[in-house]
Amino acid sequence: MEFTDFFCPKSVAVIGASRDKTKVGHTIVDNILNSGYKGKVLLVNPNTDEILGHKCYKSVLDIEDSIDLAIMVIPNKYIMQALEDCSKKQTKFSIIISAGFKETGKEGALLEKEIAEKAKQYGIRLLGPNCLGMIDFNCPLNASFSPNMPESGVIAFLSQSGALGTAVLDWAKTNNIGLSKFVSMGNKADIGEIDLFMDWLDDKETNVITAYIEGVTNGKEFMKVCSKVTKHKPIIVIKSGNTDAGAKAVSSHTGTLSGSSKAYEAAFKQTGIIRAKTVKDLFNLATAFAHQPLPEGRNIAIVTNAGGPGIMASDACEENGINLAKIKPETVEELKTFLPPAGNFYNPIDVLGDALAQRYEKTFEVILKDKDIHAMIVLLTPQAMTDELGTAKALAEALEKSGRKIPVVTSFMGGHEVKEGVDYLNSIGIPNFSIPEEAVQALKALIDQSDWIKKDHELIKAFNSDKKTVSAIFKLNIERNRLELGEMEARDILTAYNIRVPYAGVAKNITDAHDIIKNTGYPVVLKIDSPDILHKSDVGGIKVGIKNDEELESAFHTILANVKKSLPQARINGISIQEMVQDKKEVIIGVNKDPQFGHMIMFGLGGIYVEILKDVSFRIAPIKETDSKEMIDEIKTVKLLKGARGEKPSDIDSIVEVLLKISQLVTDFPEIVEMDINPLFVKEKGKGAIAGDVRIRIEK
Amino acid sequence: MEFTDFFCPKSVAVIGASRDKTKVGHTIVDNILNSGYKGKVLLVNPNTDEILGHKCYKSVLDIEDSIDLAIMVIPNKYIMQALEDCSKKQTKFSIIISAGFKETGKEGALLEKEIAEKAKQYGIRLLGPNCLGMIDFNCPLNASFSPNMPESGVIAFLSQSGALGTAVLDWAKTNNIGLSKFVSMGNKADIGEIDLFMDWLDDKETNVITAYIEGVTNGKEFMKVCSKVTKHKPIIVIKSGNTDAGAKAVSSHTGTLSGSSKAYEAAFKQTGIIRAKTVKDLFNLATAFAHQPLPEGRNIAIVTNAGGPGIMASDACEENGINLAKIKPETVEELKTFLPPAGNFYNPIDVLGDALAQRYEKTFEVILKDKDIHAMIVLLTPQAMTDELGTAKALAEALEKSGRKIPVVTSFMGGHEVKEGVDYLNSIGIPNFSIPEEAVQALKALIDQSDWIKKDHELIKAFNSDKKTVSAIFKLNIERNRLELGEMEARDILTAYNIRVPYAGVAKNITDAHDIIKNTGYPVVLKIDSPDILHKSDVGGIKVGIKNDEELESAFHTILANVKKSLPQARINGISIQEMVQDKKEVIIGVNKDPQFGHMIMFGLGGIYVEILKDVSFRIAPIKETDSKEMIDEIKTVKLLKGARGEKPSDIDSIVEVLLKISQLVTDFPEIVEMDINPLFVKEKGKGAIAGDVRIRIEK
Repeated sequence: MEFTDFFCPKSVAVIGASRDKTKVGHTIVDNILNSGYKGKVLLVNPNTDEILGHKCYKSVLDIEDSIDLAIMVIPNKYIMQALEDCSKKQTKFSIIISAGFKETGKEGALLEKEIAEKAKQYGIRLLGPNCLGMIDFNCPLNASFSPNMPESGVIAFLSQSGALGTAVLDWAKTNNIGLSKFVSMGNKADIGEIDLFMDWLDDKETNVITAYIEGVTNGKEFMKVCSKVTKHKPIIVIKSGNTDAGAKAVSSHTGTLSGSSKAYEAAFKQTGIIRAKTVKDLFNLATAFAHQPLPEGRNIAIVTNAGGPGIMASDACEENGINLAKIKPETVEELKTFLPPAGNFYNPIDVLGDALAQRYEKTFEVILKDKDIHAMIVLLTPQAMTDELGTAKALAEALEKSGRKIPVVTSFMGGHEVKEGVDYLNSIGIPNFSIPEEAVQALKALIDQSDWIKKDHELIKAFNSDKKTVSAIFKLNIERNRLELGEMEARDILTAYNIRVPYAGVAKNITDAHDIIKNTGYPVVLKIDSPDILHKSDVGGIKVGIKNDEELESAFHTILANVKKSLPQARINGISIQEMVQDKKEVIIGVNKDPQFGHMIMFGLGGIYVEILKDVSFRIAPIKETDSKEMIDEIKTVKLLKGARGEKPSDIDSIVEVLLKISQLVTDFPEIVEMDINPLFVKEKGKGAIAGDVRIRIEK
Repeated sequence: MEFTDFFCPKSVAVIGASRDKTKVGHTIVDNILNSGYKGKVLLVNPNTDEILGHKCYKSVLDIEDSIDLAIMVIPNKYIMQALEDCSKKQTKFSIIISAGFKETGKEGALLEKEIAEKAKQYGIRLLGPNCLGMIDFNCPLNASFSPNMPESGVIAFLSQSGALGTAVLDWAKTNNIGLSKFVSMGNKADIGEIDLFMDWLDDKETNVITAYIEGVTNGKEFMKVCSKVTKHKPIIVIKSGNTDAGAKAVSSHTGTLSGSSKAYEAAFKQTGIIRAKTVKDLFNLATAFAHQPLPEGRNIAIVTNAGGPGIMASDACEENGINLAKIKPETVEELKTFLPPAGNFYNPIDVLGDALAQRYEKTFEVILKDKDIHAMIVLLTPQAMTDELGTAKALAEALEKSGRKIPVVTSFMGGHEVKEGVDYLNSIGIPNFSIPEEAVQALKALIDQSDWIKKDHELIKAFNSDKKTVSAIFKLNIERNRLELGEMEARDILTAYNIRVPYAGVAKNITDAHDIIKNTGYPVVLKIDSPDILHKSDVGGIKVGIKNDEELESAFHTILANVKKSLPQARINGISIQEMVQDKKEVIIGVNKDPQFGHMIMFGLGGIYVEILKDVSFRIAPIKETDSKEMIDEIKTVKLLKGARGEKPSDIDSIVEVLLKISQLVTDFPEIVEMDINPLFVKEKGKGAIAGDVRIRIEK
């Protein structure tokens, strides 16, 4: 807990505290004092002696005590001096609320950089500048200029947008959503999402980590940290700037370089981050994670007092790939003993509109006895006889009695009529959603998180490779400023990483030809190899589809004869013989470099599938075997590789291997900025894959 | 307004009125009396004289007055008699609240049918049975057993689920959403969505029609009515039972036959119905339509006081295909005169976090001057200086001053802090959404509706056809119980509707062959035509790819010679010569019959595109030319037809024509239950399309 003295310092100084109620420097002092903070509050303002009954120092240096956290609300030009003063007071953390930095342009960005460097020298960690501050709900300490302080809870929230932060605080307060920590990151000159996620991993007050992010600062480190954290606590993120229009707004907003949306999508997948689309989704999911256990399987039961909402929930389960549990015959029999005959004893279980709390409770008890049911959704509409509060209590009791810890989410639909019931549910940690679809989505997130945690720790496979050769080729090309590699060199690089390219060789005579055939096998293509012949086919210098020794010899001699006849003066190196890859599918493996996350590997089927259907998948290198398999499974056209329409399945294992080898290659050589194997010929299962063509671009 | 006496009758009888407060028969009386109803209330109960201070009649026949609307809350077995009694009292409408009909099984269904028939004889229109009743908010009359009566407004809502209805009423009341009419349809023995939509078309109190539907009763009529209504008022529908799991729940719930989700999707598209996914979406959209005008174009401006929400809105616009208006240079200049330099003068326009109402107002004024901006989204987060109510008022004033009628939606984000502002917005008919994404979706629906209304009335094209031949073929096959048509007959049917099939003919000699070539052109396939030869290629009886006269003559003689040599005894009819379609793409046109909507026409690209990618589109016959074009444009692989990758574009016009002809064919002949043209060969632009193979199945 590196940030203990940040979130709950023993002393806080407000530099730029103000008597003027309309100023942020006043609001912050007021908020600190009103939040119930128990540490020392030290105010600094050269022009006043007292603010809100608290002594005011002329300067930081006048303060006798040490300062754990210094909050700066002064014009940007005074920050540097304030930091220097703080360094003499053993200050560990500073929050710079003041604006006038990166967000204003080049000059501000320069000042921000200088301040960050200076703070680093002094060993002071910085939040901001240009931020709202932070709130710790357990310390408690409201070190922000937002007057809204929702109740204390287990959800930590960080925001890259201060304005969105204020809206979220207001929203959380209005909807009784409890928070543990709130941080507005501002320009992220120092403290960013990586520091905070790591800190919250060990924070006992936080069960769920949530964030609004416009762009991350260090993609690789972000992925490393998130992969670790998500195995223990869910991280739910809204990432803005997804589309072109959005991305433009990002760059004009905070100057953050917004990595491409594909890169973020891949990074989130590879690190188990749950992505929310809207603030509402974010808190819907967060509330579900806050107090519910993770399910042990995917079978759920729906209990409802109305058909319509039952259908809505069933539809949503189907769309989200959640199993409606098959209700066991013995369970059905037991339900029949007390549910009216018009009820439904299969999923969704309909207890009917006249159900009192007791009928619901019996149903819960019977359902909870079935260990093959891993989660429950309870739906309720406020009908004439409905007992909303009683049903909520019945649910709590049935859960208690069963002794089981399975996730339960509810949708008590309506407004005033269901309020008492919903409040009770919230008080015991059961999240209620205003519509069934949202309840299902929340459950889906719990299931996904459960799957993610179960995934074994997997190492990155290492293949033998000849790095020396590759180094030498790149060195040579960079020296000569040839950043687009030639075909033969690109092939040599693949070969150095044991990725097959078509066999080929140049035969000076028919004996050579037979030797080459030992590697290529039939069929082959024969081409005249001569520096003097540009249009080989015009002189009869090519023969394709050569299938056996007889044809080989005949073609060999015919080509030589043809050429001799047409161009008797031409110099002849020999005849090139190249393997013809048969019975194959064509796929594409591509690589390009994202400014945030580095090398992204792309996979798709060749031709129109990539070009027109854009049916491709992405992951960030280095990838694991599971990532590689998921990449292949993710494309819609994967069925074509698995053997659709009576065809033999393709050698998917060999694609997995090539993907991993490419991942290793680009990780070994960061100078690769772009690379395409197009096509990669994939033969039938067990017979391998061969890189038909490859293009590599490097940078200095 | 056929239903005037239903929604606002001069007299209402409650048959089965009760003194017992726990009974529905009591709640209904109570609701009627409390709703402010000004007509006569007539109570019927043989066992009591008075309920809630109102006289009670022993029997319907004791009532002196006539009864406009009779509400029945009596056991199902007494309904028939009550209807007969009512018929003597000139009753025009009845609401049967009682359950125990179709929803309980066969016996109940039979009773329901008998009652519906009897009512028809008496000229009484029925709502229900097994329903919640209805509410008219303007009459006013609460003729339901739901005690919740939201405020009066302009949104009409009908529900096929009573339970969902109660939740919606409670929800509307809690969220201050005003309704004009509320109807719970129950089992729809008589009055259904078609009657009500038609009625609401002319209802001055209703601006927006909304519905929760599990299945419609008469698909064709439903489409006819909705096409008409949606040109004047938006219809927003939640259709449940979308997926397999959902559909199962539907059939066990109300016994309604749930048409396939594809058919509903197509029907909604063809009739301009707006589909909502959830109750929340439904009312989000409805509130936008309630008081906002439709936009005249797709260019919108976003005004925000915070970057984050601006990005969210931009992202959502991009995803929904809404243009962020390019702000004109003169507008930018004007904005620069009063917005701080750190603001953003392009879309989204950022007035910054410290904006007071006045800065917002000036911005609105400048934006509203630009006639190329067709709609506005206003975003606000509650920051330190923000004046929520003032900003709401500023918006109203700027709109007023501008004299323009453009749609405006807002997202004042947060809770308590923004409440006053949001309430003010609602009071002047501007819908506020808690997150920017929902504001954008609402605006998108307004834009779509505007496009839909602008669409010209389009007639269905009629092509020449030889119906007689088709009739004759079907008659013959049905007589012989051959419901799967033979290949030749199927081709004859296409020919009768002027859909091209490959040219072919049988040549007895080489002169015949040359004649046939005049029709087919080269290349052609030659095949021996003999009743004695099954495996034509085994005896050298086939030659493909014949390209000229010389090859034709040679092939003709070779085949005859081959056959004579292998099977000297075989009877020879001649040699069949068939056109080989060259340079073509393959598409599929299919037809099947949906139980609700009738013939559905499917279109997709041949082979894997249909089989594996399921990239197909559907419309319900008869289709118009626009439908046909949309079907083609809707598939993802349409780019392949438009000439991707340097290929020549295909003859899309000829596909449009074949689709229309097939639509005409199946409309002329309802006995067709299934039909596939697979493949339809499509040649390059201007060169037509040819049905390669066709399969037709008919029913008696």
